[in-house]
Amino acid sequence: MNAPDLRLPVDVPSTALFTDHYELTMLQAALRAGTAGRRSVFEVFTRRLPEGRRYGVVAGTGRVLDAVENFRFDEGVLGFLHERGVVDEPTLGCLSEYRFTGDIWGYPEGEVYFPGSPILRVEGSFAECVLLETVILSILNHDSAIAAAASRMSSAAGDRPLIEMGARRTHELAAVAASRAAYVGGFTSTSDLAAGFRYGIPTVGTSAHAFTLLHDTERDAFEAQVACLGTGTTLLVDTYDVAEAVRTAVEVAGPELGAVRIDSGDLLLVAHRVRQQLDELGAKRTRIVVTSDLDEYAIASLRAAPVDAYGVGTQLVTGSGHPTCSMVYKLVARAESTDPAAPLIPVAKKATGGKTSIGGRKWAARRLDEEGVAEAEVIGTGPVPAGLQDRQLLVELVKGGSVVAREPLDVVRDRHFEARDRLPLSATQLSRGEPVIPTEYV
Amino acid sequence: MNAPDLRLPVDVPSTALFTDHYELTMLQAALRAGTAGRRSVFEVFTRRLPEGRRYGVVAGTGRVLDAVENFRFDEGVLGFLHERGVVDEPTLGCLSEYRFTGDIWGYPEGEVYFPGSPILRVEGSFAECVLLETVILSILNHDSAIAAAASRMSSAAGDRPLIEMGARRTHELAAVAASRAAYVGGFTSTSDLAAGFRYGIPTVGTSAHAFTLLHDTERDAFEAQVACLGTGTTLLVDTYDVAEAVRTAVEVAGPELGAVRIDSGDLLLVAHRVRQQLDELGAKRTRIVVTSDLDEYAIASLRAAPVDAYGVGTQLVTGSGHPTCSMVYKLVARAESTDPAAPLIPVAKKATGGKTSIGGRKWAARRLDEEGVAEAEVIGTGPVPAGLQDRQLLVELVKGGSVVAREPLDVVRDRHFEARDRLPLSATQLSRGEPVIPTEYV
Repeated sequence: MNAPDLRLPVDVPSTALFTDHYELTMLQAALRAGTAGRRSVFEVFTRRLPEGRRYGVVAGTGRVLDAVENFRFDEGVLGFLHERGVVDEPTLGCLSEYRFTGDIWGYPEGEVYFPGSPILRVEGSFAECVLLETVILSILNHDSAIAAAASRMSSAAGDRPLIEMGARRTHELAAVAASRAAYVGGFTSTSDLAAGFRYGIPTVGTSAHAFTLLHDTERDAFEAQVACLGTGTTLLVDTYDVAEAVRTAVEVAGPELGAVRIDSGDLLLVAHRVRQQLDELGAKRTRIVVTSDLDEYAIASLRAAPVDAYGVGTQLVTGSGHPTCSMVYKLVARAESTDPAAPLIPVAKKATGGKTSIGGRKWAARRLDEEGVAEAEVIGTGPVPAGLQDRQLLVELVKGGSVVAREPLDVVRDRHFEARDRLPLSATQLSRGEPVIPTEYV
Repeated sequence: MNAPDLRLPVDVPSTALFTDHYELTMLQAALRAGTAGRRSVFEVFTRRLPEGRRYGVVAGTGRVLDAVENFRFDEGVLGFLHERGVVDEPTLGCLSEYRFTGDIWGYPEGEVYFPGSPILRVEGSFAECVLLETVILSILNHDSAIAAAASRMSSAAGDRPLIEMGARRTHELAAVAASRAAYVGGFTSTSDLAAGFRYGIPTVGTSAHAFTLLHDTERDAFEAQVACLGTGTTLLVDTYDVAEAVRTAVEVAGPELGAVRIDSGDLLLVAHRVRQQLDELGAKRTRIVVTSDLDEYAIASLRAAPVDAYGVGTQLVTGSGHPTCSMVYKLVARAESTDPAAPLIPVAKKATGGKTSIGGRKWAARRLDEEGVAEAEVIGTGPVPAGLQDRQLLVELVKGGSVVAREPLDVVRDRHFEARDRLPLSATQLSRGEPVIPTEYV
């Protein structure tokens, strides 16, 4: 695979190095012990939501599918593993032929989740499943954290558009995934060109303070921008004095000026003043964009302010206080032997002191009340009760090693809105609380 | 550039897309206004440290140099910008020839920093400098946040080794940069194979609970691991009952067992019990590795416990509560005209309500007291006082577009230890406080 095929801003010849050392040593030991071929079921789930959060958002599934497809050990990687003595020759031989041939089921991307939800289920030989732990968790833990924050922000923003502009606050490639996850959670556009290139997310932006400071006067800067980008552009009005800048902006662009951007100060107060001034100047349709250290609470507090769009950076890409999820990838069942017909045995860590989990391959369903509102996340290992058959959450993503469920990002985003809309109303309260529906095990 | 050249786990044909849309529209407007060629000075600095932190750690500089060198607009990128109408034809022409030809000075990587420290200074035409904002900030904000957390953890750990194992908790490529930054901050090794491949950081790891659960008994699993990885391996002892596992481990591997790993429970209590049990079993040299949700406070609280190494994941890769820094990239001076001889004029945003900055190209020096301990970060725009001439902090990194200051990661790591050692002792207190030395402007 190379960049043109995947439309990535970087080539990804292989995702096989996004792997923890111990996955390869486990493979080596299992190969030698004759247990590597035992059919195994791994599940991704989280024991809890981040403190105070009412629901989680599954994001990154599409990226997981890409990563699994491109998980190959090429010569460069094998040479490195050999040179550093990470694994022995028989294991290198096994890795050189590695290709995931199993099945993956999971919550569809954009769906909401709760503690215990089996977000992803990976089945195949122990050898092929164990190696995927790190790359799958990296993607889901990062992307779901960003999508959860984005979802809270988009609830708070209502119909007003949200611009993702956090690339400068996170790793340059994490930023691209963050834009994608933000879009899933309800954002409208991004400042990040790589996210536009890779995922087709609309990109926006006009100018920074540096552009005003480059010019001899603020008027010169506004004239240069309007001459080039048209009167529909967005002028940044807080480099010097806001009131003077707004006056100059309308003088330069006329009342058809597209928007002004405010990036500092008391946004509530300034937005009201600027709206009044714009109206008085006849620029009644000129929009106001605010972009200063916003989070979901600041967005909510500006609900009554004359604000037309929000730009969000730091708090979005850092998950608004929760930059990662606590998803884990656990072996929940494995065959008694390498015989393909051997039955699966549920397994689970049992030590006292926490981190226990429930063994067995799970199904999950969301039970709705009579009005169609979610009332419980039901998880079980036995047969699915008749009333929940058509409320099951897991869908087939990979079948016999082939991806069977690619979908456009807009479908994922719409699914998120739909899933969120079916939660009890208190789901979108920003205040801290328990998961909005309980998890029931049957 | 391709993967073998850069030894990256992914090919980076270009870093030019790690750019915010507005940098290109500013370029377009400046080209049209005839101001794009004005000589400009941009500086990276932060107005404050994360709340309660005593010092910051510069990390990512080496990655910035790679990014600047690979900042090129190839046909695929230009085609995208054209198709989406991001910029006009003359601007595309300018981008197609883009190559940074200016100068970059900065704090050497591993150095500590304080509010206002001019961590990086980028000089050249406005056109060439303005485009680098996002990629430079992405790298420095991410990597410095991780290095700062790592530095606090390595202070707390003293001589005991620290293993970075957070790949699963952050974006798969952010993880590679996080391993690098953790090493700069004092970590010893990583679980992440991509970090070993790219940066030569030692990789470690043996087994997870899944390996024990794969086998019919814990003894089977331990026997399989020891048969394959030798008695020097690390056995994970908390899948079922810890005391029983320790007994089995020593029976299987003998008293020469390398280490046991504890990944759950009350680590202080369990470590003491396990040490006592190992000693009683004659395994006096068997080490104890602990790896459960550690941060710098947990590491410090285990100082008196019989622990030989720490594995740190989530809290490391999320910056222990501060996953990003607040570094900004600001135009601080620019020429009056495009005449190469035109003098530079200091510029700065002046609006009320915060986010102001100090104009002018800056120098920085760290003043030491008579015992050689740092007592102030001194920053100025005029001539450097005689007494501070040889305490200056900025070094030349890029000269006329060519990188002149590549260095091995071990040099960077040693520099960090040295810089930290010169701070007042209270720098390494974990409790919240003010920056350990004041910033003085002259």
